[in-house]
Amino acid sequence: MEKTKIAIIGLGTVGTGVARLLLDHGDRTARHTGRIPWLEKVVVRDLTKQRNVDIPEGVLTDDLDEVINNPEINVVAQLIGGLEPARSIMLQLMESGKDIITANKALLAVHGPELFDRARQLGRSIAFEASVAGGIPIITNIGQCLTGNQVTSLRGILNGTCNFIITEMQETGADYNDILQEAQRLGYAEADPTLDVNGADTAQKLTILSQLAFGVRENWDRIPCTGIDMLEIDDIQYADQLGYRIKLLAVAKLVNGEVEMSVGPTLIKKGNPLAEVQGAFNAVRVRGDAVGPVFYHGQGAGQMPTASAVVADIIDTVTGRSQITFNNLELWSENHRPLSMADADNTMDRYYLRMQVVDKPGVMAAITGILGNNGVSIASIIQHKGDNGPSPETVPLVIMSHETTHGSIAQSVSEFTKSDNIESEAVVYKVL
Amino acid sequence: MEKTKIAIIGLGTVGTGVARLLLDHGDRTARHTGRIPWLEKVVVRDLTKQRNVDIPEGVLTDDLDEVINNPEINVVAQLIGGLEPARSIMLQLMESGKDIITANKALLAVHGPELFDRARQLGRSIAFEASVAGGIPIITNIGQCLTGNQVTSLRGILNGTCNFIITEMQETGADYNDILQEAQRLGYAEADPTLDVNGADTAQKLTILSQLAFGVRENWDRIPCTGIDMLEIDDIQYADQLGYRIKLLAVAKLVNGEVEMSVGPTLIKKGNPLAEVQGAFNAVRVRGDAVGPVFYHGQGAGQMPTASAVVADIIDTVTGRSQITFNNLELWSENHRPLSMADADNTMDRYYLRMQVVDKPGVMAAITGILGNNGVSIASIIQHKGDNGPSPETVPLVIMSHETTHGSIAQSVSEFTKSDNIESEAVVYKVL
Repeated sequence: MEKTKIAIIGLGTVGTGVARLLLDHGDRTARHTGRIPWLEKVVVRDLTKQRNVDIPEGVLTDDLDEVINNPEINVVAQLIGGLEPARSIMLQLMESGKDIITANKALLAVHGPELFDRARQLGRSIAFEASVAGGIPIITNIGQCLTGNQVTSLRGILNGTCNFIITEMQETGADYNDILQEAQRLGYAEADPTLDVNGADTAQKLTILSQLAFGVRENWDRIPCTGIDMLEIDDIQYADQLGYRIKLLAVAKLVNGEVEMSVGPTLIKKGNPLAEVQGAFNAVRVRGDAVGPVFYHGQGAGQMPTASAVVADIIDTVTGRSQITFNNLELWSENHRPLSMADADNTMDRYYLRMQVVDKPGVMAAITGILGNNGVSIASIIQHKGDNGPSPETVPLVIMSHETTHGSIAQSVSEFTKSDNIESEAVVYKVL
Repeated sequence: MEKTKIAIIGLGTVGTGVARLLLDHGDRTARHTGRIPWLEKVVVRDLTKQRNVDIPEGVLTDDLDEVINNPEINVVAQLIGGLEPARSIMLQLMESGKDIITANKALLAVHGPELFDRARQLGRSIAFEASVAGGIPIITNIGQCLTGNQVTSLRGILNGTCNFIITEMQETGADYNDILQEAQRLGYAEADPTLDVNGADTAQKLTILSQLAFGVRENWDRIPCTGIDMLEIDDIQYADQLGYRIKLLAVAKLVNGEVEMSVGPTLIKKGNPLAEVQGAFNAVRVRGDAVGPVFYHGQGAGQMPTASAVVADIIDTVTGRSQITFNNLELWSENHRPLSMADADNTMDRYYLRMQVVDKPGVMAAITGILGNNGVSIASIIQHKGDNGPSPETVPLVIMSHETTHGSIAQSVSEFTKSDNIESEAVVYKVL
């Protein structure tokens, strides 16, 4: 059987998993490829570091040129994180004739237009299944399996760290900071979890999915985004009493020819499969105009689920499927019928509001008056008497609105903050 | 943009949906294909029949030779059901150089080995995403997205008609026959629903999935199979009281190098995503040794979900992806490392047993004695006193076993039937 020589750049968690699958299961990958995907080189920074995989003699190197200058290596899994040197290395690899597999969502969300344009100029391909929801093959499903459809909406829980933290808060009643520390201890959260918990990681993944499904060319940091770093246990518990769970939800939906996009803690009715996603799992619900709703659930990250996605991409690239898909999808290309992100102020949603209000006559009338003046219709309002607020003479007030624009809610909240009747800023979350 | 000429054979429900997507959304299919998938011919039996789609002048024909003898038509969606003439037409089409797309699961389950061997001899491809779980792209997911894995188990709700009937029985408390009639009235069940409700349709789909995931070459009618046609509302209600839902579940799992396969009503713990699949939906849970569990949920059948799968296959075939996948999967080929179906008697499962027993002292001891002698360990036993049995002096007895072999359960049941203490045959369902 013929060989196709492969290189891996970076032997971190994912790189190690990929090396294991290629080395320990060569029969499997060969069977699905019709030739042997042969691990020729693994490029690392530090040759002396202890590794959790036995790399054969002569394969490990700290010299990228051993890949760049080897014309027999055509397929490279570039598995280093961050923007630089990842970007420069990817460009160098493509310029020397390599097809690329990557798991680096930040790189694609920031430099996707440049990298994909350059790949097209050079006749190369970039496969990136592992960049979003490692254990769910969502890229292939949207980019290949649902091509008979116009995707009309995408909703996803795309960050396992956040979902683990929220699930633990829900189950234990403990505060965010306590659970974050536990998550760090268990390895579910990084030492610096900022990009996970502030929603940036989710927004970057949404950028990639929205480009794929809708052609939206939008910088990830322009997507309206709220993280879970300010999420309070009170809101999880009030939501629970109302029959909802809170999840960090990424949404992109087609409305009147534009794409409404957002990332934020969202109340989802119990029983909805997205509400039932537990722990470090991810899930995506895609709606297509022909297929209807399709729901996917799997591990969000982790060594072997992500390696599974990378190896599928390696097999697709060695067999030539990736190149076909890459050429036809025309991602980050003007040919990909680009749709625009809708102005957030005009998007219609239901909302959950919580504020700490002074417990005296007339307050309720003032608050409902502000909402009414801004055209916000109230579905329910619950004053949680007797709960311990920050000060004894105030009580928490929870309001669920009917569908309204984000602009109306934002205006109402800005008026609330000027009111003497309301302590601290209102908590505002969308309701699915 | 160049055209690839396509033909559809059969303009039933699915064929009509496919024609609509190709005719009404040519921009969409062209964008994903890099060329225009052009509907050149639609072959029907009866030209005079009223159709729910506007087929352009000159496209509709009742002469298959207009496709066979047209060398410009390379891709054919063969959308007629049944075994003959579907089989002969598919052979003829492949011999005249056409790549095939089909939704006909019975044809593949019965004639898969012949058709796939012939396709390989002729250098042709067969794509069949629509043959299992229309709205869930499970064929591509197992055959392409999870190729870095050894699939270790597959569990699926694969028949929307059965799931609709069971869901309605659960929700209304009505009997099987009443709900079946309602399902027929609503179009969820055919006039002759035999192949759906007796489990044959599910077993045929499991045959295809097991070939794909494990290389099992087994006639579909050798899979141990129980339908829902004998399912009683009592069992749904007893299961509910115990915290379970009953679903018609297809299972294939790798145990000691063999594949345990079965189709039958199965108790699934509430909260398990498979237990929560409602109405005419389908779901599949796949476990891979790298990716872990991946869960898929979508519409099981219906015009547009199935058409979505057919059109994805048309696009894959026109772009050349199908041919790559077809060649590498080597389905129904000896090269596909065939695993055998395990002897059902040795498979280990938990069981639910219900029998109508005489309400007198010593009966419980006799029954538990039979189970004990056959090595069946009891997890719980509930005598439903006061329920109306077929005769007043008998009561229903529900037993949940610990894990045991199918052989031990079968032997116990055969001894029960000889006992004077037990009226009618015991109901036996697996517990997931």
